Amino acid sequence: MKINVEQCVALLKQNDNILILTHAHPDGDTLGCGFALCRALMKIGKICAVENCDEIPKKYDYLYDDIVKIKFKPDYVVAVDVATTNLLGDLDGQYHIDLCIDHHSTNTEYADNTLLEDRPAACEIMFDVVNALGTEIDNKIADCLYTGLTTDTGCFRYASTTANTYAVAAKLIECGADNGRINRIMFETKSKTYARLERLALDSMRFYENERVAIITITQEMYKLTGSNEQETEAIAPLTRQIEGVEIGITIREKADGTCKASVRTFESVNAAELAKLFGGGGHAQAAACRFDCDVKEARERLVEKCGELLK
Amino acid sequence: MKINVEQCVALLKQNDNILILTHAHPDGDTLGCGFALCRALMKIGKICAVENCDEIPKKYDYLYDDIVKIKFKPDYVVAVDVATTNLLGDLDGQYHIDLCIDHHSTNTEYADNTLLEDRPAACEIMFDVVNALGTEIDNKIADCLYTGLTTDTGCFRYASTTANTYAVAAKLIECGADNGRINRIMFETKSKTYARLERLALDSMRFYENERVAIITITQEMYKLTGSNEQETEAIAPLTRQIEGVEIGITIREKADGTCKASVRTFESVNAAELAKLFGGGGHAQAAACRFDCDVKEARERLVEKCGELLK
Repeated sequence: MKINVEQCVALLKQNDNILILTHAHPDGDTLGCGFALCRALMKIGKICAVENCDEIPKKYDYLYDDIVKIKFKPDYVVAVDVATTNLLGDLDGQYHIDLCIDHHSTNTEYADNTLLEDRPAACEIMFDVVNALGTEIDNKIADCLYTGLTTDTGCFRYASTTANTYAVAAKLIECGADNGRINRIMFETKSKTYARLERLALDSMRFYENERVAIITITQEMYKLTGSNEQETEAIAPLTRQIEGVEIGITIREKADGTCKASVRTFESVNAAELAKLFGGGGHAQAAACRFDCDVKEARERLVEKCGELLK
Repeated sequence: MKINVEQCVALLKQNDNILILTHAHPDGDTLGCGFALCRALMKIGKICAVENCDEIPKKYDYLYDDIVKIKFKPDYVVAVDVATTNLLGDLDGQYHIDLCIDHHSTNTEYADNTLLEDRPAACEIMFDVVNALGTEIDNKIADCLYTGLTTDTGCFRYASTTANTYAVAAKLIECGADNGRINRIMFETKSKTYARLERLALDSMRFYENERVAIITITQEMYKLTGSNEQETEAIAPLTRQIEGVEIGITIREKADGTCKASVRTFESVNAAELAKLFGGGGHAQAAACRFDCDVKEARERLVEKCGELLK
């Protein structure tokens, strides 16, 4: 059932041992949501924890390094920023999901109750939830929520960013969010291994359809050469779309098992989710993803063909 | 004399033929300020124009392409975002400057009256001025002011960005600022020639002093290979500092006459201006520049030596 912020808060208040699930390959928005909610619920006396199937990248340490993790039997399970249960990775099927708080239009409403709003970041919804819970937003909660806002909007750059996103950011900074430090960590720091991978990725960029399509290919071999890994490839996807004249930017990543995954980035002229759907994937209008059971080369050929049709 | 927003607005209202001067090598903040003020003054019946000594880069066309430029004899001259008169370039000395609206702490108070406030962008002050003028902020004025905010804060990324900057951005978007389009033009569009140059520049990056120093070298040969030019190299300098562990990032550019110029970027641990001063240059604490009468290789050696001493 779809619910609103007030109903969501009423449900949270009714329960005492709350487990929060974030999505696999966790990013700033799912983690920011998870730890902001966890902190807010702990403030009103709940027992609470955040669980994730993957290791959390080190750069997100500040979101939770002061939270003491406790073991407990959850009586209520909440998924945040998780559009479909398979995005829970290894946690998929381990819990009955009571509540979902999400901003993806592709959300499958797998939870008993779903708070779904069209916002550029799930943390923008979580800001309303935390406020409605009546919890004071301290600097730690502000850091969590600001992290989600800034990472999911490319530092407030994407067209999806609204007046409300900026207004929420203003309030979070007033509450003590360390915006300068967070943006430096998220947008101004490249590990040496990532910097090497980025160079190889840029070298691999090829253009199709009169240079309206740009495709980057990342192979397992590249991880070996650079010491980088799949987790570090997140920042690569937006690079394809930055080239003048490119309308569809695609990054294809080879997985360890030889299959691959494609991240699609577009501008207004093309719907990224529509392209991804043709291959069983999904996402947003300008950022989507899909998987392939074939090698990188075949995936590229199949994508180029569909891009050609879409651009006609 | 230093004045406040109300005094500034009173002075503007007293005059009818107002000329606005922006700084040489115009950027989004000086142009955004200039055209926002020009539009607001025209709305209250003033004759008004913006003047600049340099050609305005094409990407700023939308700031003024609907303004009909008229010739008139100014009775009041306003400089916006101009810290010292020599930054007016060829316009320096041609006018008596009645009023200056600026955000640089280094402002020399060369105008009869100066509205000086410590804000990340001059456009944040201009937002207050336009409001105090009582002019409605239409979508065109909003575009101008938003452009200054976003360009001078690196798209709201720098630590100097305050809660108020975000709050003003929220209001400007409510007034119709096309934030998605503006940020796309300013931050998401790389020309193909620049993209090629960037790849070669990243390939040229070398590390020194236990990888605490990173140096990029850009040669005349690279411009030939990529079709790029010196104007496009501005965005390269910040790339050096983005690598994890790098404390001093330097970009050395070879000039057509065989001499070269170095841009220095640092974090808090090292003063960039101090390093540049050793070679007769100067600048800010974290961004400075200097020139060399030698070739790129010798410049690099001399810089590496001094970096070693500074890092001790």
